[in-house]
Amino acid sequence: MKNDPRRRELANYHWSAAMETRFADMDVNGHLNNVAIARFFEETRIRFNWALFAGALEGRPRFLVGHVAVDYLAEGRYPAPVTMAYALAEIGRSSFRSAKAMFQDGRCIALCDTVLVHRGESGAAPLPEALRERLEPLLLKG
Amino acid sequence: MKNDPRRRELANYHWSAAMETRFADMDVNGHLNNVAIARFFEETRIRFNWALFAGALEGRPRFLVGHVAVDYLAEGRYPAPVTMAYALAEIGRSSFRSAKAMFQDGRCIALCDTVLVHRGESGAAPLPEALRERLEPLLLKG
Amino acid sequence: MKNDPRRRELANYHWSAAMETRFADMDVNGHLNNVAIARFFEETRIRFNWALFAGALEGRPRFLVGHVAVDYLAEGRYPAPVTMAYALAEIGRSSFRSAKAMFQDGRCIALCDTVLVHRGESGAAPLPEALRERLEPLLLKG
Amino acid sequence: MKNDPRRRELANYHWSAAMETRFADMDVNGHLNNVAIARFFEETRIRFNWALFAGALEGRPRFLVGHVAVDYLAEGRYPAPVTMAYALAEIGRSSFRSAKAMFQDGRCIALCDTVLVHRGESGAAPLPEALRERLEPLLLKG
Repeated sequence: MKNDPRRRELANYHWSAAMETRFADMDVNGHLNNVAIARFFEETRIRFNWALFAGALEGRPRFLVGHVAVDYLAEGRYPAPVTMAYALAEIGRSSFRSAKAMFQDGRCIALCDTVLVHRGESGAAPLPEALRERLEPLLLKG
Repeated sequence: MKNDPRRRELANYHWSAAMETRFADMDVNGHLNNVAIARFFEETRIRFNWALFAGALEGRPRFLVGHVAVDYLAEGRYPAPVTMAYALAEIGRSSFRSAKAMFQDGRCIALCDTVLVHRGESGAAPLPEALRERLEPLLLKG
Repeated sequence: MKNDPRRRELANYHWSAAMETRFADMDVNGHLNNVAIARFFEETRIRFNWALFAGALEGRPRFLVGHVAVDYLAEGRYPAPVTMAYALAEIGRSSFRSAKAMFQDGRCIALCDTVLVHRGESGAAPLPEALRERLEPLLLKG
Repeated sequence: MKNDPRRRELANYHWSAAMETRFADMDVNGHLNNVAIARFFEETRIRFNWALFAGALEGRPRFLVGHVAVDYLAEGRYPAPVTMAYALAEIGRSSFRSAKAMFQDGRCIALCDTVLVHRGESGAAPLPEALRERLEPLLLKG
């Protein structure tokens, strides 16, 4: 992630949103805690996936988080808000990988990749076609 | 990580400890939440690094978490305890990568790799020799 | 709570258990955070109520937390474990109040009262008789 | 708290702010968790006290949280934001009690009282006069 300069540019992502930081996001070091940063990426994934999935999925498909990786680039601080950005990194047969980034004070402080696996009744299942059509236009730009 | 079968065997790690789960570690799905699992790996890192670093570091060296990756293998549950395991995966010039695993009910439910960077006054600094000597015997077995 | 000296004596409670502290329970002040302490009391309530309720409740009765109050007596620290204690403070018609305490290094660092309301299909409902019989022997001693 | 109808009216508080809810604020019941609600009151206290204290305190006075009590009135939900309200309930010699409330979808879902104690070098110390002057106009209305 961190070696791809496209990942650090907000303009290369398709969606972004400001989020508030909380006092509790800091640890004893007085910075945003690493796991709290993972929490921000979880919130980003959940909020954006709801919009992505709405109407594109029949029945009750289930996506499991198979993998999460975070690159920590700079320390974050409270109480300044952060800007969270979301795009797709890769679309597979039964899973997709999202590319997310966290910005504060105009600079990129963390990157995150998450692999979501579409889970059918007996293990991984192909992505629904209607979802695939929505994912493709959202690949990271640049 | 998940493609290396050595990583799923508790016996291949050098240190392990039981940890309690908490009701708050679950999310609406009734399983241990993914970020809560990252929190267990943080706790493992902190507890074991304190022992590793004790006496091996002079002055006030600072290690920054540069990268964390987690593979989620199976769902975890509350209130059963978990067993956290720790070994070294790779030792670099100014950083090292730890290999951690989480077990519950006898099976491996998550793997984690963390890169810690030794930070000197002006960026990354070589690992102290006394620390390197302690890290080497702790490489993952198998 | 804090003005009742009986509340600060572990021996006056009926149940107690050790619990691990976590790095994440600290805030920037380097002590156990106040809300993290409320989290320990939640964990205590849940673990002990499961045992209390087991077999004493038919159907799927629901208890809602109506009120929680915490007195903070001294700062707590990581990584020492804590001891959580539980007793009953008062048994009403459709609710009961538990008396809990948190100890570390042999001294009482926080007290907590929680009111749980038994919720029937249309608001508060009388406590089941089988539960009342279990609660009565658990009133705070001293 | 809950028996004072003034406490449930947003207009009776002096300060208020919207805050975002997070997926992680829910527990297995699918509602905002009780301790997460306590976390919102902590955030409210910290954000508003910073403004209150700014310029009114010399040196490095320290306030300790001595007591927190929460009345839970209704279940809260994600992802709707909440509105947090703050006023003063009582001003003592060396401590003050704040009155806070949490609203969602136009109704009051929780109330919180917090006692902050001014801590001098040897225990509780009188409130600084400059702070007292700021606190007095902020007493709950109605």
